[in-house]
Amino acid sequence: MGACSEGVGAMTGLPLALTMGDPAGIGPEITAGAWDILRGNGTAFAWLGDPDCLPPALPVKKIETIGEAPSVFRDALPVLPLRLSAPVKTGEPDPINGQAVIDSIAQAVGLAKAGVAGGVVTNPISKAVLRRAGFPHPGHTEFLAELCHVPGREVMMLASPMLRVVPVTIHVSLREALDTLTGDMIVEAGLTTAYSLKRDFGIARPRLAVAGLNPHAGEDGMMGREEIDMIIPAIERLRAEGVDVVGPMPPDTMFTDTARQKYDAALCMYHDQALIPIKTLDMAHGVNVTLGLPVVRTSPDHGTAFDIAGKGIAAATSLVAALRLAHVLSENRLNYKEGLLS
Amino acid sequence: MGACSEGVGAMTGLPLALTMGDPAGIGPEITAGAWDILRGNGTAFAWLGDPDCLPPALPVKKIETIGEAPSVFRDALPVLPLRLSAPVKTGEPDPINGQAVIDSIAQAVGLAKAGVAGGVVTNPISKAVLRRAGFPHPGHTEFLAELCHVPGREVMMLASPMLRVVPVTIHVSLREALDTLTGDMIVEAGLTTAYSLKRDFGIARPRLAVAGLNPHAGEDGMMGREEIDMIIPAIERLRAEGVDVVGPMPPDTMFTDTARQKYDAALCMYHDQALIPIKTLDMAHGVNVTLGLPVVRTSPDHGTAFDIAGKGIAAATSLVAALRLAHVLSENRLNYKEGLLS
Repeated sequence: MGACSEGVGAMTGLPLALTMGDPAGIGPEITAGAWDILRGNGTAFAWLGDPDCLPPALPVKKIETIGEAPSVFRDALPVLPLRLSAPVKTGEPDPINGQAVIDSIAQAVGLAKAGVAGGVVTNPISKAVLRRAGFPHPGHTEFLAELCHVPGREVMMLASPMLRVVPVTIHVSLREALDTLTGDMIVEAGLTTAYSLKRDFGIARPRLAVAGLNPHAGEDGMMGREEIDMIIPAIERLRAEGVDVVGPMPPDTMFTDTARQKYDAALCMYHDQALIPIKTLDMAHGVNVTLGLPVVRTSPDHGTAFDIAGKGIAAATSLVAALRLAHVLSENRLNYKEGLLS
Repeated sequence: MGACSEGVGAMTGLPLALTMGDPAGIGPEITAGAWDILRGNGTAFAWLGDPDCLPPALPVKKIETIGEAPSVFRDALPVLPLRLSAPVKTGEPDPINGQAVIDSIAQAVGLAKAGVAGGVVTNPISKAVLRRAGFPHPGHTEFLAELCHVPGREVMMLASPMLRVVPVTIHVSLREALDTLTGDMIVEAGLTTAYSLKRDFGIARPRLAVAGLNPHAGEDGMMGREEIDMIIPAIERLRAEGVDVVGPMPPDTMFTDTARQKYDAALCMYHDQALIPIKTLDMAHGVNVTLGLPVVRTSPDHGTAFDIAGKGIAAATSLVAALRLAHVLSENRLNYKEGLLS
């Protein structure tokens, strides 16, 4: 573990593209906070948004290409300007600005695909607000996959300094998770995760742990047969593909301090099996990472927080962790391309 | 929180009855370890088992009534003797000794019901071994409820210094948990828990938190309707009964350091929703408490561990926590009876 805190040289590599997110949420203020924390130590980024919605005291430098960001970054937040349709009332999201929010994401992905940004880091958006602006995607991640022409290949990982988890089913009811989970999904998520751990996280021989679905991982079929009928065969297919994988693990004991030392990422069968342990262990430093895309993408593990926006109390901790991790992943991916990692 | 570590006077109150558990497991050695840790500071207990299966170096004192235990306890482990049918081979459980294992439990419950033991603490048993000995119950807890003539009223709580959780459905597959969960079960578990927090844990105004079933507690029905159709009505019925209860809480954020300060116990909808957070936070000090019985009952939160029995590596930590907590619960219950707590 520890990929989030791995050493990063000063101002190395490509700058990151940070999206605006919903300008009425905490995005602008945590962006300012993150710049202030990171300006001295190496994770340069440019913000793609409307400078008018940033905190007034923040030093801002409008730039024309993201390549200017590193030289500006110590003294001011580099901004690739993007105009909103209406002035922002903090805490009161307005669908009229939805198109600019969407444009910011699309432009950031464009910069990363073009190889001039090291990766995309996304500020929080409101799905409910964007839906009213005509946004047809369930969320950020699916939109990014479409922009990258790999819809359905995206895999969500939550990463913190203590644990990495990949929920195989995500934003569906628990019953729907049970009804839709398949061995193919487990195998695909496992392959994507193992490849990303190697290429992006720089782990030469990644170890996966696959959670059982049922209490005690079913206890030989006495409490559910999904382990026998679906999960064990999926594990065997992953092994046949050369993945180092253990499981099915009893879900309640696989996240203890001792157990976590034995794997690099846990493949979980449903949302809360993955998110309960990571958030219980470390609420502040969780980063959402999208695996399976041609570009690096991370985001803070929280929402727009309209209720506290503008009050000066939102913590930039998770955004800082997202930026730092994106930088590490971007560097590792470059090195991997160049064959520096096996 | 902190009930597990509340101050306990020296050798106050009634001694506890500790069952033998499976004599081929780690029960005998962790009993010896727990006696050594507790002999100096106040949680006197008697062990109901065959002295021949205890570690040879352990000072043992056979007693005839449990009332002798406190005066003996500083110098030797007080034992209420009980004969096994066959010699024990450590690590190799033998169904022929099953009846003695069962008798130990029944006698311990009898002592607690008679008011001469402060409570029952159970060493681990093997359901598979006892089943071969003709034991018809799914486990310890159901057998205890039957011995107490309250079958079906038992509620399982896991308690550690950091968290208390009550799974409303327990040892069934996740699908069966979804299929069998009802509002009545939530209300009954909630009432039993609130009453026990008051009477046994000495919390004058207990606060419950009820977990949602689905990711984000269903997000207004977008990811499952159980919250709207079942859990919210159950919460309203609990409130109508005077219980201080919040929920449904998004399961992934309700166990963080900050969130845990706001309730005394979490009512969880399924096994791993309860057991993942408590074991992830503190594997060593979890105690299993049975609520809803006329007697106090706790047990360590682990099994017989036949694979490591006799090797001198089994930790008595969880058994010590179970004995300490049983002592606190027993004292509180006595005080409550006497009207010293409101």
